[in-house]
Amino acid sequence: MSKKEVILTGDRATGQLHLGHLAGSVLKRVELQETHDQTILVADMQGLTDNGHDPKKVSENILNVVADYLSVGIDPTKTTICLQSKLPALAELTMFYSNIVTVSRLERNPTVRNEIKNKGFDKVIPAGFLNYPISQAADITAFNATLIPVGDDQLPMIEQTNEIVRKMNSIVGKPVLSECRSLLSDMPRLPSLDGKTKMSKSAGNTITLDVTNKELKKLVNKMYTDDNHLTIDMPGQIEGNVVFSYLDAFYKDKAHLAELKAHYQRGGLGDGQTKKVLLECLIELITPFRKRRQELMSDKGELIRVLKEGTEKSQIITGETCEKIKQGLGLSLF
Amino acid sequence: MSKKEVILTGDRATGQLHLGHLAGSVLKRVELQETHDQTILVADMQGLTDNGHDPKKVSENILNVVADYLSVGIDPTKTTICLQSKLPALAELTMFYSNIVTVSRLERNPTVRNEIKNKGFDKVIPAGFLNYPISQAADITAFNATLIPVGDDQLPMIEQTNEIVRKMNSIVGKPVLSECRSLLSDMPRLPSLDGKTKMSKSAGNTITLDVTNKELKKLVNKMYTDDNHLTIDMPGQIEGNVVFSYLDAFYKDKAHLAELKAHYQRGGLGDGQTKKVLLECLIELITPFRKRRQELMSDKGELIRVLKEGTEKSQIITGETCEKIKQGLGLSLF
Repeated sequence: MSKKEVILTGDRATGQLHLGHLAGSVLKRVELQETHDQTILVADMQGLTDNGHDPKKVSENILNVVADYLSVGIDPTKTTICLQSKLPALAELTMFYSNIVTVSRLERNPTVRNEIKNKGFDKVIPAGFLNYPISQAADITAFNATLIPVGDDQLPMIEQTNEIVRKMNSIVGKPVLSECRSLLSDMPRLPSLDGKTKMSKSAGNTITLDVTNKELKKLVNKMYTDDNHLTIDMPGQIEGNVVFSYLDAFYKDKAHLAELKAHYQRGGLGDGQTKKVLLECLIELITPFRKRRQELMSDKGELIRVLKEGTEKSQIITGETCEKIKQGLGLSLF
Repeated sequence: MSKKEVILTGDRATGQLHLGHLAGSVLKRVELQETHDQTILVADMQGLTDNGHDPKKVSENILNVVADYLSVGIDPTKTTICLQSKLPALAELTMFYSNIVTVSRLERNPTVRNEIKNKGFDKVIPAGFLNYPISQAADITAFNATLIPVGDDQLPMIEQTNEIVRKMNSIVGKPVLSECRSLLSDMPRLPSLDGKTKMSKSAGNTITLDVTNKELKKLVNKMYTDDNHLTIDMPGQIEGNVVFSYLDAFYKDKAHLAELKAHYQRGGLGDGQTKKVLLECLIELITPFRKRRQELMSDKGELIRVLKEGTEKSQIITGETCEKIKQGLGLSLF
């Protein structure tokens, strides 16, 4: 029996998942669980790095995120779902790694720089936020994960993780930690509904999986299309058109989608019509998710049971890695 | 039965303890264990914050430090001795607290600034080192310690700890953590043997507890006295005279010491004579420590047993504090 490659992925538990997550990563995970040894980390600790003063934003979303996973087809018998704050080995490894990473190296990390800018932290960056690449390296290495699904904006995190792996292996004198590689998403990031930014939980500009058909219609109707497409007869632009971004992500009949695009570009296809196509597509996609999600949220005990089971399994794996590091550093006296 | 006040103290496990530790803190702890609920943390994690690339400097000194404690009279039935790296709750609390402390606040901490300067870190500060005030706050609060013996250079650490306590209590909405106060050492810091700096393990300019009488004689002989005290007849200076600093710290007959000082100041008392008095004093002090230490180091299993027992007791206390914080943040789902 060949051993499956280990994947670690996850989400900050700072809000419900939305269609951006679905297109960018979550649907891919439903496939990956068939071929890989996949763990999904519900990252409550990381969620707190920029919500230290508002822990409810995190605590109230843990089960939301678990329900989102299960509702779209993540199968806990195939994928391990676990809660970051219940894995003390991750905090311990973060401490060990933080001694071999300099502050200036963290400040140079492009992902961190960008996030600091986006969040407007400037000089009031929480220490935990600056350290989060170290914490991510702890997550990845603790699970011995070698394949990490990421967007291209996260590539510097993989690079920094591998730097830590090489340094720690060199200090310990043997390859206790494994380097990892990225599995780049082939899906371009979904824009926000107004087309201005990437869709993100914090922007409040998202389509969540519990959306009703009525709400969905409203949201699709407000999607940005093309400001210069003033009449149906005029040629419309695909690039930057949020409706087509969503169709690209979710419309299954790619041949028909190509026709729609051609029609839109030469003129004669109205935004009302493209939105109608998208709305039907999204209703078909989301309705079973929403129903499953309602059932799941009506039995939180079961959600907790799933999370607990995955977490207990993960405690063993991450604890073993931490013990290896302690042994390597000579700290295992008893 | 009135509950005893909780004291947390400790040492970085980066070298054997020396007479500077003895005068500054360790002999005081032998007294405090009679009246207080005292825990001594063998701080291997903190020792690694500036020795990340040289873990042996820490790992090889853990039992040295435990032996030092026991040899001078720390009694493990009265004082809990525990190993920092075996207390995952401390790492977890550090992570939680790091989200409510800004990077610029850490950089402003006078103790950290000074240490960064002393260690020549400048721009290559390890992240773990910058974070160590947070880690110390985790240590103190995890044990519910309210009294912290410190030198005056460590007062900013107490201040930063109490800031974290107040912020976390305010976020959680109830007083889960206790503020602490400092117990300032009444003993001025012992100088290094050449009189130029404070005695520190890193300076290699120390008198350790396993020193033989022959080595001790050499060390006392090389102590700085007074460059202007060229002949016995000349008046000598007490201030800056390392021999008198040591006599102040360890010579028990204070009346006789006052006479010696007066004699030295008016002239007629040679450095050879003051050094002879000091040597006899130190031999009397150290000989029983050295003998006890030799016995202890010949049975490392017993040292490990003492450390393990104290650590297991501490795991419960620190784990309870961490659980309280998790509950307060809403993260205790299971």
